Amino acid sequence: MLTVGKELLIGRTLNTNAHWVGKRLARMGTMLSEITTVDDDPEEIASGLKGCLARSADFVVVVGGLGPTPDDMTLKGIAKGLGRTMKSNGKALSLIKEHNKKRGMGDIKMTSARRKMALMPVGAKPIRNEVGTAPGVRLGVGKTTIFSLPGVPSEMKSIFVRSVEPEIGEMLGKLHRKYISLKLEGIFESALAPIIERELKRHPGAYIKSHPRGVRDGTSKIELDIVVVGAERGRVEQTAERIGWEMKGEIEAAGATVRSARGTARRAGG
Amino acid sequence: MLTVGKELLIGRTLNTNAHWVGKRLARMGTMLSEITTVDDDPEEIASGLKGCLARSADFVVVVGGLGPTPDDMTLKGIAKGLGRTMKSNGKALSLIKEHNKKRGMGDIKMTSARRKMALMPVGAKPIRNEVGTAPGVRLGVGKTTIFSLPGVPSEMKSIFVRSVEPEIGEMLGKLHRKYISLKLEGIFESALAPIIERELKRHPGAYIKSHPRGVRDGTSKIELDIVVVGAERGRVEQTAERIGWEMKGEIEAAGATVRSARGTARRAGG
Repeated sequence: MLTVGKELLIGRTLNTNAHWVGKRLARMGTMLSEITTVDDDPEEIASGLKGCLARSADFVVVVGGLGPTPDDMTLKGIAKGLGRTMKSNGKALSLIKEHNKKRGMGDIKMTSARRKMALMPVGAKPIRNEVGTAPGVRLGVGKTTIFSLPGVPSEMKSIFVRSVEPEIGEMLGKLHRKYISLKLEGIFESALAPIIERELKRHPGAYIKSHPRGVRDGTSKIELDIVVVGAERGRVEQTAERIGWEMKGEIEAAGATVRSARGTARRAGG
Repeated sequence: MLTVGKELLIGRTLNTNAHWVGKRLARMGTMLSEITTVDDDPEEIASGLKGCLARSADFVVVVGGLGPTPDDMTLKGIAKGLGRTMKSNGKALSLIKEHNKKRGMGDIKMTSARRKMALMPVGAKPIRNEVGTAPGVRLGVGKTTIFSLPGVPSEMKSIFVRSVEPEIGEMLGKLHRKYISLKLEGIFESALAPIIERELKRHPGAYIKSHPRGVRDGTSKIELDIVVVGAERGRVEQTAERIGWEMKGEIEAAGATVRSARGTARRAGG
């Protein structure tokens, strides 16, 4: 994922877009391999995109910088990164006009700022934006599909759910994912470490991670995440619950308290 | 900035650390040029670090993955990226012991998990962590200084303020920064675009950016940020206020309402 915008680099705006996309993909059983944030600058965007493409990812999601203002440079940067020229896209132009009509501005002048939103790298296909003016963009490069979405969260989410997720879902087939979260009290991370290590040896594909939540009144608090992903639903659930159960036992044996926060860690898998 | 942790990629945790560091640096009159987020994986961390070093930045701030658990792999990844070996650091070991003593655990066993936090790339210097166990790390590579900090926000902030900011501040000298934010109602971004463009031509070094905040009851709302940075305080303030004043005039002439949200856009610079 490539997020574009100086506001993200100077602490003006929290990158909730990356957080939201990451969560949606995790729910689908896949994940972002990298998030890169760069400035509103064609060179920066081009080099950020090249970094993403170098991963040979199936999908690159670019967010931000599609609007009409001078600092909206994402498509210019993508064109630069791909060595493609920019061309006015007829379908994008009519999507923009259609949107203006919908909000009662059908006779508004197509200024150069408005026409700018239809300027796209050659080969790009505009995606309808149900919420705002600037269309999204879809662009195939080798085995990678690039989606470029507006940075306004409501517009980004709307296009992502309608047009990006279905395509990713189709490629993924049907993966299942089970998430269990345990709340621990009275154990330090350094004591938890060997327990996690043993458990990861037993279940090498699983994701087990501790998040320290501070020490209060001498008691260390930790949140422990367990995630299992796989093609067979029953097996995924069974493995996750088994891990939860095994770890609960070991952690309690170490003298700590375990509460199940999400998912079920109570029903043992076996 | 390189932020490390699967929780950031799967939408488990918002990257408030990058937001906080970005804001602190912006206040100092400088900025992050890139934020990259990667998984808890030595290969990923190594390649993310190489990407940062390729920018020949003065500083790279790495956050996350310094703890005792198996998924804490940042120092291993940094060593890999730099082609350095890992070595137990005596000063780091004594900082860890000192911290345990401070929390009344002076006789705790130095397990391998605890000793892991003192394993650092050759040439690294540990930085005292006043809040938690894992020391931060400082490491010079050519003209770039790498700081590696824990991901727990209170620990990261404490080390950043005490040990990272002073060094960056010294390099920067004294830069001044003036930030003005205007709240606009009744103008669309496409109509604002040419006004911004004209203003940027008048003041090429300034940062002027619009953030659309949606359309309510047919009225478009936009936040407009103006930032000027420079060595002379008086000139920086004067320029920022002049831009604010000029834009307020043009935007009001276009029929929209302008409110000053932060900074002063009322006192004209001239």
